[in-house]
Amino acid sequence: MGMRGDVYDRNCPSREIANHATSHWGSLVLGKLVEGTKRFSGLRRAVPGISEKMLAQTLQALERDGLVLREVRPVIPPHVDYTLTPLGTQVAEQIRGLFGWIEDNLPSLLAAQQAYDARRVDNV
Amino acid sequence: MGMRGDVYDRNCPSREIANHATSHWGSLVLGKLVEGTKRFSGLRRAVPGISEKMLAQTLQALERDGLVLREVRPVIPPHVDYTLTPLGTQVAEQIRGLFGWIEDNLPSLLAAQQAYDARRVDNV
Repeated sequence: MGMRGDVYDRNCPSREIANHATSHWGSLVLGKLVEGTKRFSGLRRAVPGISEKMLAQTLQALERDGLVLREVRPVIPPHVDYTLTPLGTQVAEQIRGLFGWIEDNLPSLLAAQQAYDARRVDNV
Repeated sequence: MGMRGDVYDRNCPSREIANHATSHWGSLVLGKLVEGTKRFSGLRRAVPGISEKMLAQTLQALERDGLVLREVRPVIPPHVDYTLTPLGTQVAEQIRGLFGWIEDNLPSLLAAQQAYDARRVDNV
């Protein structure tokens, strides 16, 4: 079946998936997993500010969408590994690209913010 | 000054800008403006589900970040045009690319969701 999604259609499931992938925590988790497999505790350290509950919810949504693979390692003590799937790698590399662009262009973006704030002050 | 941002640093302003650009409404508004200049009312129609207040807040944040240009047209009746800046175009094209990827790969993503849900049922 050759169905294609439409994120601008409120009833299309692609919209919810896009929301998971671009959400604040979802995008940061995907972007971090580009570096390789991580454990839950390692991800929590790597994404400052995320709560345990929010990380668990974020990973569960990304796992359900087929972007993240969750593997329980039966070692002592047991731990859980999270890895990007091939689909997840494609999404995460695009997010990483966007983050990199924003990081590279931060001076221009901050200059725009300062100009905007200065105009606001002038208009008071 | 050659400063570069780090979206994984909670104190770096790049994180807030990334949040504006990748937020649910921010990403949909940026992606829609790739098609060209739009008025407020046209954007509201083009992004189903967004409230007037949320669209105004979203556009204000994107304008402050230097991604969207707001122009008041002194015609009768007056209206306001919203256009991507050159910086905004670069961000929006990346978001559009990500949306397009999700739309194209929707069958694989839905198959992953169904497999996940089936595993859950098995485990009950």
